[in-house]
Amino acid sequence: MYGVILAGGSGTRFWPISREQNPKQLQKIVGPETMIQNTVRRLLPLIPVEKLYLVTNHRQATETLRQLDSYGFFSDHLIAEPSSKNTAIAIGLAAKLLIAKDADAVMGVFPADHVVANSEVFIKALQKAETLAKKNYLVTLGISPTRPETGFGYIKRGAETDGVAGAYQAERFTEKPDLPTAKQYLEHANYFWNCGVFVWKASTILEELRRYAENIYSQLETIAGCLRRSKEKPGYMELNEKGGDLFSSLPGLSIDYAVMENSSRVVIIPAEFGWNDVGAWNALDDVSEKDSDGNIVSGNVLAQDCKNSIIRGHGRLIAALGLKDTVVVDSPDALLVCAKERSQDVKKLVEVINADGRPEGKQFSAAEKPWGSYTVLDSGPSYLLKRIEVLPGEVLSLQSHQHRSEHWTVVSGSAQVVRGDETFQLKANDSITIPEKTKHRLGNSGADPLVIIEIQFGNRLDENDIARFEDRYGRC
Amino acid sequence: MYGVILAGGSGTRFWPISREQNPKQLQKIVGPETMIQNTVRRLLPLIPVEKLYLVTNHRQATETLRQLDSYGFFSDHLIAEPSSKNTAIAIGLAAKLLIAKDADAVMGVFPADHVVANSEVFIKALQKAETLAKKNYLVTLGISPTRPETGFGYIKRGAETDGVAGAYQAERFTEKPDLPTAKQYLEHANYFWNCGVFVWKASTILEELRRYAENIYSQLETIAGCLRRSKEKPGYMELNEKGGDLFSSLPGLSIDYAVMENSSRVVIIPAEFGWNDVGAWNALDDVSEKDSDGNIVSGNVLAQDCKNSIIRGHGRLIAALGLKDTVVVDSPDALLVCAKERSQDVKKLVEVINADGRPEGKQFSAAEKPWGSYTVLDSGPSYLLKRIEVLPGEVLSLQSHQHRSEHWTVVSGSAQVVRGDETFQLKANDSITIPEKTKHRLGNSGADPLVIIEIQFGNRLDENDIARFEDRYGRC
Repeated sequence: MYGVILAGGSGTRFWPISREQNPKQLQKIVGPETMIQNTVRRLLPLIPVEKLYLVTNHRQATETLRQLDSYGFFSDHLIAEPSSKNTAIAIGLAAKLLIAKDADAVMGVFPADHVVANSEVFIKALQKAETLAKKNYLVTLGISPTRPETGFGYIKRGAETDGVAGAYQAERFTEKPDLPTAKQYLEHANYFWNCGVFVWKASTILEELRRYAENIYSQLETIAGCLRRSKEKPGYMELNEKGGDLFSSLPGLSIDYAVMENSSRVVIIPAEFGWNDVGAWNALDDVSEKDSDGNIVSGNVLAQDCKNSIIRGHGRLIAALGLKDTVVVDSPDALLVCAKERSQDVKKLVEVINADGRPEGKQFSAAEKPWGSYTVLDSGPSYLLKRIEVLPGEVLSLQSHQHRSEHWTVVSGSAQVVRGDETFQLKANDSITIPEKTKHRLGNSGADPLVIIEIQFGNRLDENDIARFEDRYGRC
Repeated sequence: MYGVILAGGSGTRFWPISREQNPKQLQKIVGPETMIQNTVRRLLPLIPVEKLYLVTNHRQATETLRQLDSYGFFSDHLIAEPSSKNTAIAIGLAAKLLIAKDADAVMGVFPADHVVANSEVFIKALQKAETLAKKNYLVTLGISPTRPETGFGYIKRGAETDGVAGAYQAERFTEKPDLPTAKQYLEHANYFWNCGVFVWKASTILEELRRYAENIYSQLETIAGCLRRSKEKPGYMELNEKGGDLFSSLPGLSIDYAVMENSSRVVIIPAEFGWNDVGAWNALDDVSEKDSDGNIVSGNVLAQDCKNSIIRGHGRLIAALGLKDTVVVDSPDALLVCAKERSQDVKKLVEVINADGRPEGKQFSAAEKPWGSYTVLDSGPSYLLKRIEVLPGEVLSLQSHQHRSEHWTVVSGSAQVVRGDETFQLKANDSITIPEKTKHRLGNSGADPLVIIEIQFGNRLDENDIARFEDRYGRC
């Protein structure tokens, strides 16, 4: 069985931890690992890493590979889409890739950012699904509703399928119902949440795409032929220009809408593996450990007499007193304080932040980079102050800036600095100034992380004021 | 009439804005000015600045003078106490100073950190009080209670005094009553809150101190003789060593306990001038402007669907969603999120923070200095990063450090830097390194504020690692 992880989300409902450019699957929302790391770890007992594939957005490709590096994830098993086009094309493209390797390939499709509390039950359900997939069914896993949720799709089960105990014909797919309908579904034992996990043969889903979404299917072969290794260092798969244009011209359809609602081959296996889509901060109540007062607290927090609250510190002290059902989430440049019952509306709040033209909705003042990370510490009318951390062995691009000089002071580790024709070795407490328009390059020449304080100085301080001449990560 | 402002408080109930070392009277709690600036402004229509005096703690003396500089406050009218000894000694000492200048001096005593909404009524009450003070009464202003407050002292009024309409014998002083008693007081029209404003002749209060607090009175003459001009630049009044020792040996009594509860000369003038002691964050409800949902919001805040909440931003964005009766106060290094009804307990919370050995209870990561201010921006195992702002014309002490080097980069303004035997003129984008053990001095040589980024580097980074050789502010 192959695994295809869909990681294209750009969710902002976990703002300020997740942002448009740092979506939920790349964040540590539950436990010590990121959601996508949890997803891969969960699948490995059933699907070896060499059979795991992943489709994501090109903006998250490098960071995704960085997070999966320690799992041995194959960098050319990551397909970076040029834009977000929902699930139908992503799944069709993955099926094309797999069928080219293995005509009988069975593929499981998995969202990258959900929680599964009981991995064993999950794996067993997938094994049962595989059996049915081999018989050319489109298999979905169904979750018994526990509330009248209006944000999910529902599947109505019909008769038992093909003599397989615990598998049923899917009688009907319903996208997000209204509340009265959702309440009716909750009362019947034969409606299930569609958790977005599917198992089928690559050949079956392609047949059904041909039947029900011909406009997409007809282009898949061409698009798959346009995949090539990226120039960025880890070498993920991306589309060439022709493929990108074709991709972008296609409609963004969900696989549910394109196929599942139409096909007669769909079956459902109800399974209770502690699934949670972790759709907003209040979902942590269902998936995180709590203290005796029902609080979920992490970071530098002093909480007194708080109840059923979620408090996440980041650096600075948070003192919380007498809070009830409140969410407090700190980040370097923005703080959320929210009535827990309003967690679903954080998404709308971020829309307001974006509409106001504020940067905090989209990106962090701290940013992960292929070579390490930087954090904005301070800024003024003509300066910007950053702490830059370069991982051992990594090096930034050879670059220059038109409108700023940069002043670097090493505070720990060892740096190799190229400035014009010269090369310098700097150690802690050494400084160097890079004039504007001068080609320069910063690398970590030691075994420990390199930390420098950068003072940018100029009248136009803009991340886009950069000319790259050489780059290990293909960003020239 | 003379005015004596008592500004010795070290309140922490407005944490994280006020801290042990940055008390409430020096903070902007209500309106654009600090509490002590508001207090001086309120008195000026009645008492010219040359008749205003102020008693505070030596730790706050320089900052207090800095805040009152624009009012023309006389620096030698500030008496800096070596330790906090409550109000009786402070008042006795001020009376001694005034009587030496003017045998018939009438003095008003004013807390530095209260709000008066109606200054005109306040001034009229003081004028009536002055009339009575001249007849050797100890005059208090009394506020009609609006709630069964257990945190205030109460005064029971008796018969009308001396034929003066609206002035009464004070029949009894009661310190902080229990709740049932406070409820009884609220039901009677003849109990008033003691707002800490007193008017009397210096000679009268000294007589009463002699009668009821002989142990304090007997030392006042000696202590007053030990007052001298401080060496710190603005030249406030402080005690020499002998006076300081004597001062510290005296008991810390309130003037209420020492005199008012005993004297038969006390009269009360009930007056409704919109008094509020602003004792905790929830007091802002009574003294600040609110939006149509009852919120008091300031700073970089995006509030949606909030009600009756107090939200104060500081730099970073605060996004607040669906809060009710909640207090959110941000500061550079600590954040408070608190149920509004628990505002009084912030004081206890700070005790816990202090007991935990955390620095955030006592001092800011940003600090006001006589020459300007600094803000800690970042720190690591062997470095500390500060933004330092030096006011025009100001200069730090000539100093050296045993355990750290410092690296300075000017980001705006002009600096004169002394390093060993050399002097440098630095402008924006210039840098200099100060090795450890090297004498150095930083001054603002321009007309605009000087801003530098300082990177301290060393294995022991401690504000106490400083040897001062020359200092304009007397800190050698």
